[in-house]
Amino acid sequence: MVGEIISVGTELLLGDILNTNARYLSLQLAELGIDLYYQTVVGDNEDRLTEAIIQAGKRSDIVILTGGLGPTGDDITKETLAKAMAKKLILDKQSESIINDYFISRGISPGKTNIKQAYIPEDAIAIKNDNGTAPGIFLKHNDKMYFCLPGPPNEMKPMFEEQIKPIIQKISSTSIFSRTIKLIGIGESKAAELVQHVIDKQTNPTIAPYAKTSEVHFRITVKENDKEKAIELLNQAEDELRIYLEEYIYTNDDKELNEVIVKLLMDKELTLSVAESCTGGLFSSSIIDVTGASKVFVQGIIAYSYESKNKLLGIRPDVLQSQGAVSEIVVKEMARNIRMISDTDIGISISGIVGPGGGTEHKPVGLIWMAIDYKDNIYTKKILLKGNRNKIRENTTKQALAFLYRVLNKQEEPF
Amino acid sequence: MVGEIISVGTELLLGDILNTNARYLSLQLAELGIDLYYQTVVGDNEDRLTEAIIQAGKRSDIVILTGGLGPTGDDITKETLAKAMAKKLILDKQSESIINDYFISRGISPGKTNIKQAYIPEDAIAIKNDNGTAPGIFLKHNDKMYFCLPGPPNEMKPMFEEQIKPIIQKISSTSIFSRTIKLIGIGESKAAELVQHVIDKQTNPTIAPYAKTSEVHFRITVKENDKEKAIELLNQAEDELRIYLEEYIYTNDDKELNEVIVKLLMDKELTLSVAESCTGGLFSSSIIDVTGASKVFVQGIIAYSYESKNKLLGIRPDVLQSQGAVSEIVVKEMARNIRMISDTDIGISISGIVGPGGGTEHKPVGLIWMAIDYKDNIYTKKILLKGNRNKIRENTTKQALAFLYRVLNKQEEPF
Repeated sequence: MVGEIISVGTELLLGDILNTNARYLSLQLAELGIDLYYQTVVGDNEDRLTEAIIQAGKRSDIVILTGGLGPTGDDITKETLAKAMAKKLILDKQSESIINDYFISRGISPGKTNIKQAYIPEDAIAIKNDNGTAPGIFLKHNDKMYFCLPGPPNEMKPMFEEQIKPIIQKISSTSIFSRTIKLIGIGESKAAELVQHVIDKQTNPTIAPYAKTSEVHFRITVKENDKEKAIELLNQAEDELRIYLEEYIYTNDDKELNEVIVKLLMDKELTLSVAESCTGGLFSSSIIDVTGASKVFVQGIIAYSYESKNKLLGIRPDVLQSQGAVSEIVVKEMARNIRMISDTDIGISISGIVGPGGGTEHKPVGLIWMAIDYKDNIYTKKILLKGNRNKIRENTTKQALAFLYRVLNKQEEPF
Repeated sequence: MVGEIISVGTELLLGDILNTNARYLSLQLAELGIDLYYQTVVGDNEDRLTEAIIQAGKRSDIVILTGGLGPTGDDITKETLAKAMAKKLILDKQSESIINDYFISRGISPGKTNIKQAYIPEDAIAIKNDNGTAPGIFLKHNDKMYFCLPGPPNEMKPMFEEQIKPIIQKISSTSIFSRTIKLIGIGESKAAELVQHVIDKQTNPTIAPYAKTSEVHFRITVKENDKEKAIELLNQAEDELRIYLEEYIYTNDDKELNEVIVKLLMDKELTLSVAESCTGGLFSSSIIDVTGASKVFVQGIIAYSYESKNKLLGIRPDVLQSQGAVSEIVVKEMARNIRMISDTDIGISISGIVGPGGGTEHKPVGLIWMAIDYKDNIYTKKILLKGNRNKIRENTTKQALAFLYRVLNKQEEPF
């Protein structure tokens, strides 16, 4: 069964707002086992909206329209739907009395434009709106189902979940279950190459790779009505991916890398301190983002200047002068010293050149050194990143998280 | 001139990600005076993508496709575009050497799938990607213009702004000029109320308010081909807004608040040190985000635990015990002490309860204290924020920037 979403609103075409409704409905339809092939955004324009509705009716079984149910002359969604289906608009008595009550309870009398909202196409069913005055609409026509929902998410979402989802659930013959396997330390193309033969032979579940900042995700999706059977199929596909990718996988649990690391530190009862330079607090912040971080994170020092590296972290000026702040020896000392100052199990340090200025032939923009002191073993890593200042800083933070994860899992060799 | 956006990616249809690219491009096209009637989202499916491309080519002059330029077999955007236009794919030598360099500089040899990215439709022009390996594509066909852009926003946006915008600008017949006036310290509805009569009487330029995190923006947009005349109209509208909003405006220059602050500090030759707790490095990071931050930012301490506030910042244990870490006296001492330790002109401190746990009746989740020590004057501020942990942390960072801005502009009274 195929669904389609049409988002109506000139404000979407002007870029004034993000289309969060389309995303929400896509997620919902996926869970209901409805295939979605298209999302369309169209303005409050009768001709173009008519075209979009007719096209959707030809190629999809369920058409969901959002937006354009308001009281003003701009709002033409249900008028256009009715016209496209050659249906009249008729007054829905129940909607009328709900609108009247709504205004009277606020001490105002409803205007003519408000009562416009109580009109629905003939043969349609009005769907009650608990959070506003525009009723939704459910119309069956030529074996296709059309739903109109209000644009404001706080009206649209409860209406969908409480009233429309059960209707679709009844007619949907398949359910979809999915799982995301997340990897670090490997690029998308390399990862896909390693398991291409697994991906190719799969039809249900399907497996698809996605590149994220410093990560690769594999999404396994299965169409299957029986939940236990679905989980078994997901497990099988995951096991097969693990044969080739085990060492890169950090979660199959929809968690972010920083959450996985904080949990790992909590489980191992380890504490952490941080000395960062170029990332300027971003690494510490990614740890403190996680609820419960106070159990593992003790303190951080953002030593941005030479003086600061010397005074707060005790890096000798002659080392800074001779080797530069972005060097293996400096990050080693930073990691060791922050750990000693903070009396933690782990000290991690990051120093790099994030640009746009400050690069040289031997130390170009994008060069990053990092070190981890973990129970007196020192681990170091050098990476070279591309992009603008902020991209390098974000990417460095992610790479440092990956490095810490691998050290905690004994996947790195000490210095 | 009519434009159209086609976003390619099954992850959009599954609701895995929000379509921020479509919004960004819509805003850009609006500014360029290009009318946009449709946005379409379609999966990585050859038949349906072909249909979308052909349909768009019939009804629009400029078709912008995003996504599906990656190295894996899933990524079929340019292959499908080429096929729909009956064109072969040919190897673009320059793109090939850029990809080779990219991998070699990382000490890896590029795989076959990576070189796939260097193929472009014949007669097309490859558009250089400064932040990734997938080049963009510009193809003219039957008087229509087709652009393919990579899906990751950090690759797509600079490519659009630096290389595609100038192409479209040349052929667009109406020019649109706009200016954004940015405000802090006032809410959207209050700000809109103050200037509603100005907004209502404007037709060209138009003025629209937007709410942002802790900020309000007014966007002034004028349709006018003569640049000097356009600038005059923008100036007039801005002047009129300033009559009512002057004290809240921090820029009319498309800069972010952190950029404005770093520039202000540089102009005044002031240095800054930071002691933060709940924001966990996010405030320091927002300063270090800005190019040239090394001239003003000396160091930061992320004192997350009581011990850390005591040992690194010298806050007395009895004060911490009796007043709690989230209190006016503690942030005052933190600001003063970080300034003394760092020998800077300004010390700023932040301490708050970001949840989900840790709140009490008198000190609920969302309570934040901050202080600024500026040349021996102490300024303090208490705020109460709503939202989840991350939202509170981001919002706190923004509010601290606003606070610092107002102190630097003598809009706050010392303690």
